[in-house]
Amino acid sequence: MRVTISGGVHGNELLGVYLVKKLQSDGLSPKELQLDLLLANPKAIKECRRYIDYDLNRSFDKAKLMQDSHIYEFERAKVIKDRLRDCDFLIDLHTTTANMGITIVLSSQEKLSENVAKILASEFEEVRILRWFSTDEGAFINSIVPASITIEVGPICQGVLDSELFFKTLKVVHRALDILQKEESMDEEVECYDIFDTIDFPRKDGEIAAMIHPEFAGRDYQLLHKGDPIFLGFDEKEYFFDRDACYGVFINEAAYYEKGIAFCLSKKSGI
Amino acid sequence: MRVTISGGVHGNELLGVYLVKKLQSDGLSPKELQLDLLLANPKAIKECRRYIDYDLNRSFDKAKLMQDSHIYEFERAKVIKDRLRDCDFLIDLHTTTANMGITIVLSSQEKLSENVAKILASEFEEVRILRWFSTDEGAFINSIVPASITIEVGPICQGVLDSELFFKTLKVVHRALDILQKEESMDEEVECYDIFDTIDFPRKDGEIAAMIHPEFAGRDYQLLHKGDPIFLGFDEKEYFFDRDACYGVFINEAAYYEKGIAFCLSKKSGI
Repeated sequence: MRVTISGGVHGNELLGVYLVKKLQSDGLSPKELQLDLLLANPKAIKECRRYIDYDLNRSFDKAKLMQDSHIYEFERAKVIKDRLRDCDFLIDLHTTTANMGITIVLSSQEKLSENVAKILASEFEEVRILRWFSTDEGAFINSIVPASITIEVGPICQGVLDSELFFKTLKVVHRALDILQKEESMDEEVECYDIFDTIDFPRKDGEIAAMIHPEFAGRDYQLLHKGDPIFLGFDEKEYFFDRDACYGVFINEAAYYEKGIAFCLSKKSGI
Repeated sequence: MRVTISGGVHGNELLGVYLVKKLQSDGLSPKELQLDLLLANPKAIKECRRYIDYDLNRSFDKAKLMQDSHIYEFERAKVIKDRLRDCDFLIDLHTTTANMGITIVLSSQEKLSENVAKILASEFEEVRILRWFSTDEGAFINSIVPASITIEVGPICQGVLDSELFFKTLKVVHRALDILQKEESMDEEVECYDIFDTIDFPRKDGEIAAMIHPEFAGRDYQLLHKGDPIFLGFDEKEYFFDRDACYGVFINEAAYYEKGIAFCLSKKSGI
């Protein structure tokens, strides 16, 4: 089985960058697996930015992969698509400023990916499974491989390393490789969360008019009830949640401000 | 007295940007004070980056202010120097990923600045005074005005707003204006910290080889003893502090990775 581990799809998410570098210098090569270690966006990594011209992790849809482009990430996406043409399984490493612990994001319904995610979630207390199947902006890197997990680790600021979360994530990655190598599987149902909508900040003339409410900050994966405070305006006006109870995730993720996402809504489910 | 409040000297430190915008929309104009509200680096603010070509807050030394330059920040520094030519007092707003609370940074020995800092530190529990008089990289914006305080607020991730720290900082800024307006002064000595050195990450061939140790993370302004762990290597090697006891500040500040600073050393003193 050919497995790729990618870090630095977003260049300022240092955990993935340095985890891939560590695995490179360790010379890790599990039996039964052909391992490819990928620093996905070298230019953004060098400049410690999320991306140079466009979000690389929204650059893998067919239209973008077909056109010649002045956009660095569109060209990089083609190079990565070619490099991953024989890849069987991708582990893509990210961080988030939201209080998400170690979240395994699944971006399609696929048996092997689900299997790895389920075993990890059942064995590690801090690991949760989140399903997020589509965005309007463009396709994830996961779309070019047959099976994959994305690992989102937080809260970590952009441009910063967190040694505790680094080694926790490393353990999860090692175990994922182990699962793939031994072809372990799991039949029991495991808890997961499904993103079904996103909520933007209140705005005035396009400008952000309110921040995440102090009582909502950091409450990822906690039940959000109708009537709970979610935003606090610069004028100190409070905004309350007016929908049916569900679970907030990616609350106050730095990279989503520009995408018009203050947080995502998810439902608890089973997989 | 002419007072300037600047936000967005670093474009991804959103607290200052939105605090200045709030004051603009509030139309605040204290008696006795002429208030100028400055969004210092509009291009970096638009792109939510620290800077475009060079750190604006290291762009105010004479050599840089004299030369014609292709560097956006050097040109912006000249514009700001001209705009602030009659400014008597500058309040410059920043955030840090370090656990610094609300830190008033003083960058020169000057009576009015010290006075404002002392009153704020004596009245607000979360406010501390830190003196940092020089860097090798270039002069701060404070160097072009006769008196100033820099307010560093943390921990806050780059590109993120924190509503609790936003309103705490707003109170401190209002009180600073109040002190300036009433020309209050304070004779009693107040505790402060003096930065006397900086410590880089352990490196191998120029590359970072270790992270801030979990036991040291977040311990800004706490006494660091000889023998305390400070770094944890990617190979799990521990590094220990081998100098006389002092206080770490700016521990794991994102923007200082590229400056070769993992944290700063400070001594407790009085002002």
